[in-house]
Amino acid sequence: MTDYRRLRVALLGAGAVGSQVADLLRKHGPELADRAGATLELVGIAVRDVDADRDVELPRELLTTDAEPLIVGSDIVIELMGGIEPARSYLLQAINSGADVVTANKALLATHGPEIFDAADQVGASVYYEAAAAGAIPIIRPLRDSLAGDRVQRIMGIVNGTTNYILDRMDSEGADFADVLADAQRLGYAEADPTADVEGFDAAQKAAILASLAFHTTVPLGAVHREGITAIDKAMMDAARHAGYVIKLLAVCERLTGETETGGDAISVRVYPALISRSHPLASVHGANNAVFVQAEAAGNLMFYGAGAGGVQTASAVLGDVVSAARRHIAGGVGVGESTRANLPIVEIGRVTTRYQITLEVDDQPGVLATVAGVLSEGRVSIATVEQTVIGDGEEGSGVARLVIGTHKAREQDLSETVDRLAASGVVERVVSVLRVEGD
Amino acid sequence: MTDYRRLRVALLGAGAVGSQVADLLRKHGPELADRAGATLELVGIAVRDVDADRDVELPRELLTTDAEPLIVGSDIVIELMGGIEPARSYLLQAINSGADVVTANKALLATHGPEIFDAADQVGASVYYEAAAAGAIPIIRPLRDSLAGDRVQRIMGIVNGTTNYILDRMDSEGADFADVLADAQRLGYAEADPTADVEGFDAAQKAAILASLAFHTTVPLGAVHREGITAIDKAMMDAARHAGYVIKLLAVCERLTGETETGGDAISVRVYPALISRSHPLASVHGANNAVFVQAEAAGNLMFYGAGAGGVQTASAVLGDVVSAARRHIAGGVGVGESTRANLPIVEIGRVTTRYQITLEVDDQPGVLATVAGVLSEGRVSIATVEQTVIGDGEEGSGVARLVIGTHKAREQDLSETVDRLAASGVVERVVSVLRVEGD
Repeated sequence: MTDYRRLRVALLGAGAVGSQVADLLRKHGPELADRAGATLELVGIAVRDVDADRDVELPRELLTTDAEPLIVGSDIVIELMGGIEPARSYLLQAINSGADVVTANKALLATHGPEIFDAADQVGASVYYEAAAAGAIPIIRPLRDSLAGDRVQRIMGIVNGTTNYILDRMDSEGADFADVLADAQRLGYAEADPTADVEGFDAAQKAAILASLAFHTTVPLGAVHREGITAIDKAMMDAARHAGYVIKLLAVCERLTGETETGGDAISVRVYPALISRSHPLASVHGANNAVFVQAEAAGNLMFYGAGAGGVQTASAVLGDVVSAARRHIAGGVGVGESTRANLPIVEIGRVTTRYQITLEVDDQPGVLATVAGVLSEGRVSIATVEQTVIGDGEEGSGVARLVIGTHKAREQDLSETVDRLAASGVVERVVSVLRVEGD
Repeated sequence: MTDYRRLRVALLGAGAVGSQVADLLRKHGPELADRAGATLELVGIAVRDVDADRDVELPRELLTTDAEPLIVGSDIVIELMGGIEPARSYLLQAINSGADVVTANKALLATHGPEIFDAADQVGASVYYEAAAAGAIPIIRPLRDSLAGDRVQRIMGIVNGTTNYILDRMDSEGADFADVLADAQRLGYAEADPTADVEGFDAAQKAAILASLAFHTTVPLGAVHREGITAIDKAMMDAARHAGYVIKLLAVCERLTGETETGGDAISVRVYPALISRSHPLASVHGANNAVFVQAEAAGNLMFYGAGAGGVQTASAVLGDVVSAARRHIAGGVGVGESTRANLPIVEIGRVTTRYQITLEVDDQPGVLATVAGVLSEGRVSIATVEQTVIGDGEEGSGVARLVIGTHKAREQDLSETVDRLAASGVVERVVSVLRVEGD
């Protein structure tokens, strides 16, 4: 048995992920020591309530409600409490007392990331956060290190397991949103208050983290355009399937080449439900799984796939970070800071171009298609495909027709103004849906 | 413009990958400097012939046939010459003169890895080799760092683009091996001498590298069981398709729990064509693409997908390593060495268990199936499925029947002895094929 240096590890939080981290740290101690080159001694676990029920039983003597003495004097501090405070203060305190820190707190990083990275930079500490985006999928190191010599063009990620579970079941069972959501809540795939997931807040936090890394640019959460999936209904799902698409909640981080006035690059970061072709690799991501599809200038197309959530899965990512932190502690030198020197401008959603699928109910009258086509053309929205179906008794002039229009790439602002004009044109009864098409 | 420290970068080799690395280093200089925190100055490119034709035009004044003066005094040495010598000597020289090194040389690492890693360890240098396994796909860092806190159970990789291209076309077009190989050679997907690819040597080198990382164990190339794809014919492909499988050349790195006499773990590393279910994520890896499927105790199933080869794609992985090496140079401290302390025993192929599909031509006589089933049962090979089809005129006793037997998991040695006994049993006309079934 090698005589390793001892590193003191403090754990803040013992919920679904934290309790698994504590368990694995204790179970695999000697193995982890061999890999890290140091014995990882779990010196304490800060919790709100030492008597709370936990997924895994933890030694009572390690539990404490007093985090601060734990933090001071630890070499590595793992923050798995979630939320902004006191997580933020504890992380800053850990950094300032010389620890390297590991966190899975996407809400904190997406809102206070620069403050935390700056603090670490000041003292040469490192911040590890593999578990903060796409759960167990190793995506942080590939973006930060492996692709550091390349130029990322676009990321399309399925980064929220709950919404992918819901959309996947709606797609495969022809079920409606509310029914699947209720079932997902019963099965524990969705929270009692599902807002963070179904409204895209969770995905937006992850999008901000991924875009920051990919484009070496600070991306504030407020700059992420966000739409949820609550408006997606069975009819839209059926129509998507009919057209060879599937609807996924996508986090899209895109480089817009030559977009600025001086010809420089800009970026767009957005979360919304979008149509993607059933032949796209992301279309076959089922259930609560996550996947991140990356297009880079030199590397081409890459995809990273795996479990997006789950206590023990996320614990794997956290422990990988703990081993990395330990290796750095042993190796010495200052930590690798964040790289945000590119700081590309972030454009509004209105300047983004994608393809669209517009579904309208129109009067089944002669000349209606010509009117619709005219409005689109005036609005600089070019039609790629049209499909017209009569609804009702099928006799001309007596009913309503459904028009599904696929567009070429159009600018979001042009498209949305055009849809407004269509709605006001007198021939459109109802704008059924407007969905973006991603991934060509 | 920040005033960065200058790092001297030497490039050895300017072939398909090297010329792209040189090009990208020069094109993206300022961007790479921002990310690395240092200016990467390409001080020279060692080549065999300065007048050779290259994919990308390189400045004549950087080219030299004299590698040694370049190596001495460089901070980062990139080795893209391939082959064992002089690559090995140059890398050792670079390490001993204080450089960090980057290499894509899988043949060298699979045969002389320990020597090179030891040399780096002695002086605190780092060896980066993301491009040595699965081309542009970031798999080294995920295995070495992200999964360092987990326990990898199994890796199944499609790590050779040429053979995947050939097998994919055989599958989708119903073509035969020789025809597709000839076409692949014409299109540049296969070399004039295709041995390294089609006999599995290239995949075996990558398997050794992946297994070393995943299991923290030195895996010599000689310990990798290797079979190529030259025996795979149209009939096998058709039969596989009929049974819901596809044939892929897989690199399998597997942990065998409790396999040693003292109840410890062992590992198996093997390369062979195997059947996998069409619903497995690896089945949808088409063309010359690569993918690595990883099963870990805590993280669950992960998959990494992308381009497995190609000059500019591989250059992306090399440059990611160069930026990492530069960051480490700036940060100071010793390099992170290899972790091989687990050093699990590597078992022979005979001790491995998998499922099998055995295809036999037997006399179409009463009692034949009973004889075959008896031989299998005596050999401790348990039958899961049987399908019998009559070949010939279909009248009993007059012809030959084809028997396709799917087995439960059986030990390779039992299986191969049993197949020998079947062949000698008097009722078997011909053993058509014996294929392993992976991925359940």
